[in-house]
Amino acid sequence: MAAEEETGRRVPVARGGTTAPGGLSVGRLEAFSDGVLAIVITLLILEIRVPEPGEARGSLGHALAEQWPHYVSFLLSFLVVGIIWLNHHATINLLQRTDHRLLVLNLLLLLPVTVLPWPTDLLATYATEGTPADQRLAVLIYGLTSTAMAVTFNVLWRYLRRHPELHKPHVSDELLAVRNQRFTLGLAVYPVATAIGLISVPLFLALMLALALLYLLPTPDMQV
Amino acid sequence: MAAEEETGRRVPVARGGTTAPGGLSVGRLEAFSDGVLAIVITLLILEIRVPEPGEARGSLGHALAEQWPHYVSFLLSFLVVGIIWLNHHATINLLQRTDHRLLVLNLLLLLPVTVLPWPTDLLATYATEGTPADQRLAVLIYGLTSTAMAVTFNVLWRYLRRHPELHKPHVSDELLAVRNQRFTLGLAVYPVATAIGLISVPLFLALMLALALLYLLPTPDMQV
Amino acid sequence: MAAEEETGRRVPVARGGTTAPGGLSVGRLEAFSDGVLAIVITLLILEIRVPEPGEARGSLGHALAEQWPHYVSFLLSFLVVGIIWLNHHATINLLQRTDHRLLVLNLLLLLPVTVLPWPTDLLATYATEGTPADQRLAVLIYGLTSTAMAVTFNVLWRYLRRHPELHKPHVSDELLAVRNQRFTLGLAVYPVATAIGLISVPLFLALMLALALLYLLPTPDMQV
Amino acid sequence: MAAEEETGRRVPVARGGTTAPGGLSVGRLEAFSDGVLAIVITLLILEIRVPEPGEARGSLGHALAEQWPHYVSFLLSFLVVGIIWLNHHATINLLQRTDHRLLVLNLLLLLPVTVLPWPTDLLATYATEGTPADQRLAVLIYGLTSTAMAVTFNVLWRYLRRHPELHKPHVSDELLAVRNQRFTLGLAVYPVATAIGLISVPLFLALMLALALLYLLPTPDMQV
Repeated sequence: MAAEEETGRRVPVARGGTTAPGGLSVGRLEAFSDGVLAIVITLLILEIRVPEPGEARGSLGHALAEQWPHYVSFLLSFLVVGIIWLNHHATINLLQRTDHRLLVLNLLLLLPVTVLPWPTDLLATYATEGTPADQRLAVLIYGLTSTAMAVTFNVLWRYLRRHPELHKPHVSDELLAVRNQRFTLGLAVYPVATAIGLISVPLFLALMLALALLYLLPTPDMQV
Repeated sequence: MAAEEETGRRVPVARGGTTAPGGLSVGRLEAFSDGVLAIVITLLILEIRVPEPGEARGSLGHALAEQWPHYVSFLLSFLVVGIIWLNHHATINLLQRTDHRLLVLNLLLLLPVTVLPWPTDLLATYATEGTPADQRLAVLIYGLTSTAMAVTFNVLWRYLRRHPELHKPHVSDELLAVRNQRFTLGLAVYPVATAIGLISVPLFLALMLALALLYLLPTPDMQV
Repeated sequence: MAAEEETGRRVPVARGGTTAPGGLSVGRLEAFSDGVLAIVITLLILEIRVPEPGEARGSLGHALAEQWPHYVSFLLSFLVVGIIWLNHHATINLLQRTDHRLLVLNLLLLLPVTVLPWPTDLLATYATEGTPADQRLAVLIYGLTSTAMAVTFNVLWRYLRRHPELHKPHVSDELLAVRNQRFTLGLAVYPVATAIGLISVPLFLALMLALALLYLLPTPDMQV
Repeated sequence: MAAEEETGRRVPVARGGTTAPGGLSVGRLEAFSDGVLAIVITLLILEIRVPEPGEARGSLGHALAEQWPHYVSFLLSFLVVGIIWLNHHATINLLQRTDHRLLVLNLLLLLPVTVLPWPTDLLATYATEGTPADQRLAVLIYGLTSTAMAVTFNVLWRYLRRHPELHKPHVSDELLAVRNQRFTLGLAVYPVATAIGLISVPLFLALMLALALLYLLPTPDMQV
C-alpha cells in the first residue's frame, strides 16, 4: 500500500482537466464528521438509567437525586462535543479542498470523540462510588480523553495551517494567527483542569463545566 | 477565550474578498441538527423491550398489552421530535448565513432534544408503576423537557428575528410576525398541558398527543 | 395552530421575490430521511447478543447456531430498510421542491421505519420460543409494521403524484404511471406474505427474504 | 417487480429534457453511506462496559486492565471502518452519477459494515475466555466479516470501473489501473491475516492493527 508512496511517482488523476476542486471532498469530510459528532452527542443520554420503581427508599425523587453525577457528566460531555463541533466547523470552513492526509488526521480527531461516552459513564459512576484511587483514575481517563481531542484537533489545525493551497481564497494570515493562539492555548486547558481535578470528582466536574461554558462565548475570529 | 471579545477588536476575516456568504455554515448547522434529530427519533424505539418468553401469564399478547404506556410515549416523543424538525426546517430555511451566536443557540436547543429519550422512558415506566408522587414527578420531568425545547426554540427564533442581516432576501416582515405569534403561543402549550397532566399520566399522554397531532396540521406560513 | 388554516388567508412569503424554489427543502427532507434510514439499518445489529462464554453446552459454535433466527431477521430487516431507501431515493429524486404536507407525510413514513428494530427482535426471539399463538402474534406484528411502511409510502407517493407543481421539469406521465403500478402492487405483497407466514415463523422469514431479494432486482423505471 | 426488466422496455424518464445528471443521486448515495459508516464507528464504544464498583479485586485499575481486548478490538474496528470510509470516498468521488445497480451494490457493501460491531464484541469477549476452538471461531467470524467488506467493495469497484458513462470527465485510465491493483491486492489481506490469526487472538489483533495502520498511509493515487 505504502510502497507507491516511496517511489514518489505522481499518478496523473485526470487528463487535461480537473475534478471539481475538492468541494465534494470537503463536503464528505464535513458530512462524516457531523454524523459522528451528532451521534456521540445523542448517544450520551443512553448512559442515564431510569430507576426501577421501588429503588432508593421507594421514592423516584430520591432515586433520581442520587444520579446527579450522571446529569452533570452528561451536560459536560454534551458541551465538550458541542465545542469540538463549533471549532471543527470554523476550521473546515476555511478549506476549499482537502487531501488524503487531512482526511486521516480528521479520523484521528474523531477517535477520542467516539470514545467519549465511555469515560463519561466512568466518571459519573465513580463520582460517588469506589475508592479515592478509583475516582482519581476516572478523572484521569476523562481528562486524557479530552486532552486527546485537543491534541488531535491541534495536529489537524497545524496541518491545515501549513497547507495554504487547501484554503479558500482570502483567508487572512491574521485570522490564522489569532486562531492559532487560541487553539494552542486550548492545549493547556484540559491537562491543567485534570491535574487540579485529581483532588475530587465534583471539583473536576465544576471546573470542566466552567471551562466549557467559557469556551462557548463568542470570539471575533469565530465569526467566519 | 472570551478576552478577545472584551477588546471589541474586529479580526479581519479576509483581505479584499469574502468567503461564500455563509451558505456552507447554514449547511452544516442543518446537517448537524438533522443528524441529532434523526438519531433521537430513531433511538426512541430502543426503550421498548421485547418481553421474555413466558412473561406476563405465559402469553406474549398479555405481556405486550401491559407495555401500552411505552407505545404511547414512543409515539408522543416521535411526534414531538418531528414537530421540532418541521419548525427548525421552516426557520433555518429563512437564513442565508449564520453566525457564532446562532450556532451556540442551536446547540442550546439540541440539549433538551438529546435528553428526550430519558423522560420518555421515565414517563412510560411510571405510567403504571410507582406512587402517585412518582407519577407526578415523571409527568413534570417530561413536561419540563418539552418546555425547555419550546423555550430554547423561541430564544433561537428571537435571535434570528432580530438579525435581518442573516436572512435570505425577500423574507417579509409579515411572515416573521405570523410565525412569531405562533411560536410565542407555543411557549404556553407544554406548561399548561403539564399542569393539567399532573392529575394523571394517561391524561397527560392523551393531552400531549392531541396537541402534537394539532401541531402537524399545515398552516399557511409554513409553506416556505 | 390550525386556526389560520381555516381562514384560508395566504401569508405572503416574500415581497417581490422568491426564495430558492425549494432546493433546500428537498435537501433537508433527504438528509433527515437518510439519517433515520441509516440509523435504523445500523441499530439492527444491536439486537444480536454475543453469547456468554460457557453458554449452550460450553461451545460458542452451538450458542451461535441457536441464534439463527436473529441472523435471518437481521438480514430481512436490513433488506427491507434498504428497499425503502432505494424507493425513497427514486421518488424524492423526482421532486424539485416540497411543501409542508409532504414533509408531514414523510414523517408518517418514517414512523414504521423507526419502529422496525422492535418487531425484528420480537420475530427473532419468538421464532423458536413461546407458544404457537405467540409466534403468530410476532409474525403479525412484523407483517403489520412492514405493511404500514408500504401504506405510508403509497400515501406519500400519491400525494406527490397529484402535485405536478412540485416535480422537476420533464418528469414524464409514463414514468409516473409505471411506478404507480409497481408501488400499488407493493401494497399487496406484505399482507399476503403475512397471511401465509402465520403458518410458521421460518416460512414467513423465507417468504419475506425471497420477496426482498426480488425487489432489489433493477427495473427500467428506477434508473432515474 | 422484476417482470418489467425482462421485457427490456425502456421507460422514457423525461420528455425532451433531462434531470440533473445524477448529482443528487451521488449525493444521497454518499449521505446514506456516510450516515451508516458514522453510526457504526460511533456505536463501537457501546460494547465497552464500565466496570461495576468493587469488581476485579476491588480496584478500578484492575477491572479496566482486564478489559484490554475490548480496547484493542475497538481500535481495530474503528480503523477498519475509517479505511472503508476513505476508500469509499475516493471511489465515489470519481462518479458523476449513479444507477440502480450501483446503489444495490453499495447496499451490499454496507451489509458487512453494519454487522461489524457484533464480531468486534465477539472477538473482544473470546480473546481471553472460552476454549481454543471458541477463540478460533471468533477470529474466523471477524475475519470473514472484514473479508466480506473487501469482497463487496471490490464488486462495487469493478462495476464502477466497467461503467465509464458514470464517471466524471477526465478520470484517467491510469488512475483506475493503479487503484484496481491496490483494491485487488486488498482482497488477499484479510484472508491471510485470518489464517495466521487462527493461531491466537492476540496475534490476530496485532496483525490486523498493523495492516490497518499501513493502509492509512497515503498513496499518490488517493489524492483525488
